[in-house]
Amino acid sequence: MTTVAAYAAPAAKAPLERTTIERRTVGEFDVLIDIKFAGICHSDIHQAREGWGKAIFPMVPGHEIAGVVAEVGPGVTRFAVGDRVGVGCMVDSCRECANCKAGLEQYCDQRPVWTYNGVGKDGEPTYGGYSQKIVVDENFVVRIPDGLSLDVAAPLLCAGITTYSPLRHWNTGPGKKVAVVGFGGLGHMGVKIAHALGAEVTVLSQSLRKKDDGLKLGADHYYATSDPATFEQLAGTFDLILNTVSAPIDFAAFLSLLRTDGAMVNVGVPEEPVEILLSSVMGNRRTLSSSSIGGIRETQEMLDFCAGHGLGAEIELIRADQINEAYERVLASDVRYRFVIDTSTI
Amino acid sequence: MTTVAAYAAPAAKAPLERTTIERRTVGEFDVLIDIKFAGICHSDIHQAREGWGKAIFPMVPGHEIAGVVAEVGPGVTRFAVGDRVGVGCMVDSCRECANCKAGLEQYCDQRPVWTYNGVGKDGEPTYGGYSQKIVVDENFVVRIPDGLSLDVAAPLLCAGITTYSPLRHWNTGPGKKVAVVGFGGLGHMGVKIAHALGAEVTVLSQSLRKKDDGLKLGADHYYATSDPATFEQLAGTFDLILNTVSAPIDFAAFLSLLRTDGAMVNVGVPEEPVEILLSSVMGNRRTLSSSSIGGIRETQEMLDFCAGHGLGAEIELIRADQINEAYERVLASDVRYRFVIDTSTI
Repeated sequence: MTTVAAYAAPAAKAPLERTTIERRTVGEFDVLIDIKFAGICHSDIHQAREGWGKAIFPMVPGHEIAGVVAEVGPGVTRFAVGDRVGVGCMVDSCRECANCKAGLEQYCDQRPVWTYNGVGKDGEPTYGGYSQKIVVDENFVVRIPDGLSLDVAAPLLCAGITTYSPLRHWNTGPGKKVAVVGFGGLGHMGVKIAHALGAEVTVLSQSLRKKDDGLKLGADHYYATSDPATFEQLAGTFDLILNTVSAPIDFAAFLSLLRTDGAMVNVGVPEEPVEILLSSVMGNRRTLSSSSIGGIRETQEMLDFCAGHGLGAEIELIRADQINEAYERVLASDVRYRFVIDTSTI
Repeated sequence: MTTVAAYAAPAAKAPLERTTIERRTVGEFDVLIDIKFAGICHSDIHQAREGWGKAIFPMVPGHEIAGVVAEVGPGVTRFAVGDRVGVGCMVDSCRECANCKAGLEQYCDQRPVWTYNGVGKDGEPTYGGYSQKIVVDENFVVRIPDGLSLDVAAPLLCAGITTYSPLRHWNTGPGKKVAVVGFGGLGHMGVKIAHALGAEVTVLSQSLRKKDDGLKLGADHYYATSDPATFEQLAGTFDLILNTVSAPIDFAAFLSLLRTDGAMVNVGVPEEPVEILLSSVMGNRRTLSSSSIGGIRETQEMLDFCAGHGLGAEIELIRADQINEAYERVLASDVRYRFVIDTSTI
């Protein structure tokens, strides 16, 4: 066991504070990672405040982890000391169900072992990336290509894969019209990736406040959803609407923007139940769906894709003692576009 | 103009009665069809009783039409007198929008001209198949292969294509597990077609009342949805759930029966708005969608497929003076499995 410094929420809704946690001894297939950077994801806040239901405390959030391998177990074959690596939302899964075998560990029949607010196969609670070191089985570690700086790579481990996976699954590419709803941590990565995949990209944001950024980062169009004319003008336009907003939105209005066979895919997870009228789904064979992060193999593919296209997240680097303030700013949509903790300040 | 006998609802919710209507003179590209049989679809009742909103009266329902060509216009190239033909839910569309050009006339941007309760391009109301003759542009007429009797072919023009189209679109075939919700006019065709496509077919019906029929017509399994154990036992099972029920059902429960990437597709159209919890759609990338009949080209493909597999509808042949009684029996789910009017009795 190794004692490492971390930032933890001692209880639901309590501010995060500096503490120490134990990391397990490096096992046969384990990789010990010196964490360099950890992104702050909206879901960290959902969970630290029990917005998604009962959680495990103390909680060390963080599932956008970038660092360097410091030690490997004797059975590790894929990584060596000094490798630049990342860890996302999962640190294990059953590895035996059809989903795991298909590389869809995120849909593991037994549920994956989440990077934090989960319970490992050893029965111990898991602690995330707001800490100095983490021990992870090599099968749940991915390589960060040399072309990507670790700080801008960290958010790719959740925000990147969460948008890349559905964009690829729903065949985003040249000739396709993609709308990204919401222009925050997820949304800005959705825009970058959809653009790099060759699609015509439209941002649908509440206001035009971030329009300049949107166009700069790859959007072809940027509309305010607060303007009803937007919905008239864009009716029947999109092949894919990627909804990154976790607050309730007017689904019927957004669904009307799909063309025949278009899909609206939700990647934000609302805290409150949202009701959708079936009639708004019906017509022109449109589909409503959702997507959750991506599998490990696809996460590696995403990192390679992003490195190949020079895509990192737009970040604001913060010290660990700014985490609580950063949470408030995330809730106020006041971040361009992802807070990343310099974990050397923990 | 030709005067023909028909059965019409004189007003919303009024019983249907014998009357006469005028059919237009056969135009350059028109086909005059001697109607032999007309199926009774649940949507005839929805519309005759204004369950889907304001309708046009008098209404001659009927969009499952099988007959024989009696006359063709000078420009008609695809049909000749004596040909066995069918007409489904549409008798025209704009023919110019992207959907029409893609063979998806049912999703025409200008909306198709419906076979009844619609307005033709001549500005006149359309009248459906509960009549002795109909005049239709040849592009909206399909050929009924010799192997299919006209009486059992009639319901294929709506019940057949409404189930065939989504089954094909969602890749039903060997190795796929398909559930058909509801075992009535649509459901029994869904079972026959899914079975002929090679899928493993499960019927999910309220009770086991029609289980013997289901297994005989091609189902591999038959479960009662009134039994909560059904939902436990079948969790995460299906690639596709084809919902043929137009009454509200517990969508969350049915969605839970989908495996990863599975789709639930609605082909019944509820009269009342139905609300679905977004959370029930989320997880394992399942999709919720809908499908409406099929295009003209695909309708022909469906008829050829059904003829090739010896598939017609299971029908109860009735006289025209039994239509009102038949409506009551449809509403009571008391028909095995489609009423078809012998239009010589009108």
